[in-house]
Amino acid sequence: MVNEKDVPENLEWNINVRDGTKQVVAVPELRLVDKAWLQLKSVVGGLILKVWRFLVKAWNLGVAEPKKIIHAMKVGLALTIVSLCYYLRSMYEGVGGNAMWAVMTVVVVFESSVGATLYKSINRVAATSLAGSLGLGVHWISYKSGEKFEPIIIGISVFFLASAATFSRFISSVKSRFDYGAVIFILTFTLVSVSGYRVNEISELAFQRLLTIFIGTSFCILISIFFYPTWAGAELHRLIYQNLEKLADSLDGYVIRYFDDNGNVAEDSNHNKAIKGYKYVLDSKATEDNLVIIVASTFQANFARWEPAHGGFNFYHPWKQYLKIGASLRSSAYCIEALRGCMDSESQAPGIWYLKKHVSNACKTINKSSSDILRELAITVKTMTKSSKMGLLVQEMNTAVQKLQISLKSIPSCLIAPTSEETADEAPFRKTCITPLVEVIPLTTFVSLLIENAARINGIVDAVNELAVMVDMKHGSSKKTNTVITLPQIPKP
Amino acid sequence: MVNEKDVPENLEWNINVRDGTKQVVAVPELRLVDKAWLQLKSVVGGLILKVWRFLVKAWNLGVAEPKKIIHAMKVGLALTIVSLCYYLRSMYEGVGGNAMWAVMTVVVVFESSVGATLYKSINRVAATSLAGSLGLGVHWISYKSGEKFEPIIIGISVFFLASAATFSRFISSVKSRFDYGAVIFILTFTLVSVSGYRVNEISELAFQRLLTIFIGTSFCILISIFFYPTWAGAELHRLIYQNLEKLADSLDGYVIRYFDDNGNVAEDSNHNKAIKGYKYVLDSKATEDNLVIIVASTFQANFARWEPAHGGFNFYHPWKQYLKIGASLRSSAYCIEALRGCMDSESQAPGIWYLKKHVSNACKTINKSSSDILRELAITVKTMTKSSKMGLLVQEMNTAVQKLQISLKSIPSCLIAPTSEETADEAPFRKTCITPLVEVIPLTTFVSLLIENAARINGIVDAVNELAVMVDMKHGSSKKTNTVITLPQIPKP
Repeated sequence: MVNEKDVPENLEWNINVRDGTKQVVAVPELRLVDKAWLQLKSVVGGLILKVWRFLVKAWNLGVAEPKKIIHAMKVGLALTIVSLCYYLRSMYEGVGGNAMWAVMTVVVVFESSVGATLYKSINRVAATSLAGSLGLGVHWISYKSGEKFEPIIIGISVFFLASAATFSRFISSVKSRFDYGAVIFILTFTLVSVSGYRVNEISELAFQRLLTIFIGTSFCILISIFFYPTWAGAELHRLIYQNLEKLADSLDGYVIRYFDDNGNVAEDSNHNKAIKGYKYVLDSKATEDNLVIIVASTFQANFARWEPAHGGFNFYHPWKQYLKIGASLRSSAYCIEALRGCMDSESQAPGIWYLKKHVSNACKTINKSSSDILRELAITVKTMTKSSKMGLLVQEMNTAVQKLQISLKSIPSCLIAPTSEETADEAPFRKTCITPLVEVIPLTTFVSLLIENAARINGIVDAVNELAVMVDMKHGSSKKTNTVITLPQIPKP
Repeated sequence: MVNEKDVPENLEWNINVRDGTKQVVAVPELRLVDKAWLQLKSVVGGLILKVWRFLVKAWNLGVAEPKKIIHAMKVGLALTIVSLCYYLRSMYEGVGGNAMWAVMTVVVVFESSVGATLYKSINRVAATSLAGSLGLGVHWISYKSGEKFEPIIIGISVFFLASAATFSRFISSVKSRFDYGAVIFILTFTLVSVSGYRVNEISELAFQRLLTIFIGTSFCILISIFFYPTWAGAELHRLIYQNLEKLADSLDGYVIRYFDDNGNVAEDSNHNKAIKGYKYVLDSKATEDNLVIIVASTFQANFARWEPAHGGFNFYHPWKQYLKIGASLRSSAYCIEALRGCMDSESQAPGIWYLKKHVSNACKTINKSSSDILRELAITVKTMTKSSKMGLLVQEMNTAVQKLQISLKSIPSCLIAPTSEETADEAPFRKTCITPLVEVIPLTTFVSLLIENAARINGIVDAVNELAVMVDMKHGSSKKTNTVITLPQIPKP
């Protein structure tokens, strides 16, 4: 079929006739109706295609994260219950009036985690009460001061309180806990103080409104806690131990690939995905599409502290420490990013092979113990039990680092700088062995970043240990229970 | 004065009498009233101190960023105007009714940047109209289908539409543009469809409500644009060129400190602050206190596209490209972070001094041209004019990288690996000169990261060039106007 786009304004056919000349045959123009029809078809087709793609995207998201569908259905459920109450009430009373606030509360308060819902609910109720009573006071004062001064007093008080509350939202301590409360405070205060009601009317109204808001928030809290709850704390917890695992996978992947002699590391997409896991920790994939993890975790930590005790976490669980662990994880991820940078610039000089082999074992050992530590930390965080072999693993890693440094020290004598006691017949061998420094640089950079990374992993161990002390972790089921996790300092090369 | 904490439950005085024995004199207990008074004083004192500290913090924030105070006053102004309208209206009509929606709109819609205010305003008006007409339809259908089916139809439609709209908020394309609209859609749809009014009543009500919302949003938009506007786009623009400058300062600081022979770099706090500027780019300072820059910039870019043309930016300004420049900036910041890591582990071996001096000039040249490029890019972005010397600078940097690689190549012959043609009397000198590889590693790592960073700076140049093409930047006032910015690839070491 002829596509609308392929049809130029004035269609012509060029026909090569037998005698070599060209004959131009004008094609009759498409009628206006046909044109419009084609255009309409293409527009509608494009629209259908767009909607279809959107639906496919939504479907895939739903299949990948059924939690999100459950949340959507919970909101639907809460809203249906509350609005049917409102409906029945409005049938009898004609107007429905204040019951509207219950519906409004459910819509704006119900969030995807229990912590966020609690944060908004408590903020809403507290701010409404506070601003309502303050507004009532201002209303009373302005009412008493006569008709002339009434709008002036109201205007000034609205201006100053609204400005102050808006400004307070920029202050970090207010922002993290009472941001939503400040908005509700401004709203309620303004509505109450400027309303034309008499004071005795308004106080009844305020009470009713507070009651409906209370009913709305109760519904939200109950449904969000008792129907497939999503705890912000549990999410943050999962995020941290999953990132520990991802970091271990990345580290393993890069080091093994670098030292693999045959270069035949499985290049399948799964492996590639795993090896790039550090990027999730690093947030270098931050685009507008996915809210970045640092902030997601900061929000989660803010919301988590509103949550009651659940699944092994107390009310005073040190969620902030998770952010600290997250920061030390990122610090190690930066190192892995730099490590990856070195791999692109590998040298093919003849001496490198020998040198690489020389340090290969020590590097592999460091890598093995590093990623073992990360995986063990993931288990520690996941199960909330102290690991009995952590001390041993850290010692192993630090010993491996020292061994690598010793083996690096032995390089010049065997490879680059021959002693003068050598006999003449050794000279040819020596000459082929000498590797110019510039060729060695990528390898040494790789090795020194590996050592730096080991030091940063010690930082992660520290952060997790602090968490263990804070929540008074018990040892796991292993028999050795009295191992103290000691962290010997890594000597720098 | 005796502090309340220092007073134990039963106070006693031990007195050593001259004959060596002790006499215990019981002190009369503090009266309950005194105790309560002391406790009250300490509680009130603590509270006053807390409030005082909060006020000081707020004051400092206001002094540091007067823009925030201006925003707060703008909100106060808009709210005062709208609420006085509401007040006057409610004086005549008794109830005020729908005018309330204008107040509510101002409170929730007024954001700190023009883009965010526009985004919320347009979302609010569009979602209210759409959901209002849809709700009206459902209301009519349920009304026609009889009393028995009415609640069922309403319940089902509320459940499905609310669930679908909530779920759609998780889809990235909806989230970045219509997140707020989805909330308002659910709210309006539910309120309209469950209201007990008759259809002809409700359509008038809906029209009035839409009108008040329209009035509220108009106020917000006008005030946010015409009174000291804060453009999200301009903020994002400023963020990018400031980060370019910060990166240049950091790079300069570290390289000069590393190669400074006397180690007497000014250690004042200003210098330290400048040198750590890369951390702002890196977001490693991300705590709950400051919303991180990546996300801030993502939000800004989302909001900026709602803004009309302002101060040199068109409506279709490619804000997304700024995010790309930001990502390449971060990539370079990771490198500088690794660079800083090397500086801690500096070796003091005798040969290092010579080696350092050997590469020092080349490194300083790379650094100078790198930071010159960053500063030139900052100017390019700031003034939105193509730089005429950028091509030259990039060439300079890449030449410097090549020179460094050549000077690295010349090291082994002079320093580490002597040839066998040497005479015997040279041997002692040679021996002192030989530097074991392990000592050289920190230096070589530093150098190779510097080279890697140069490659990443090329990436930043690319991203800025793409921006220049997109917005069709003109050349600056310099005479040379036809220089094409060419980017020769850096050969890896």
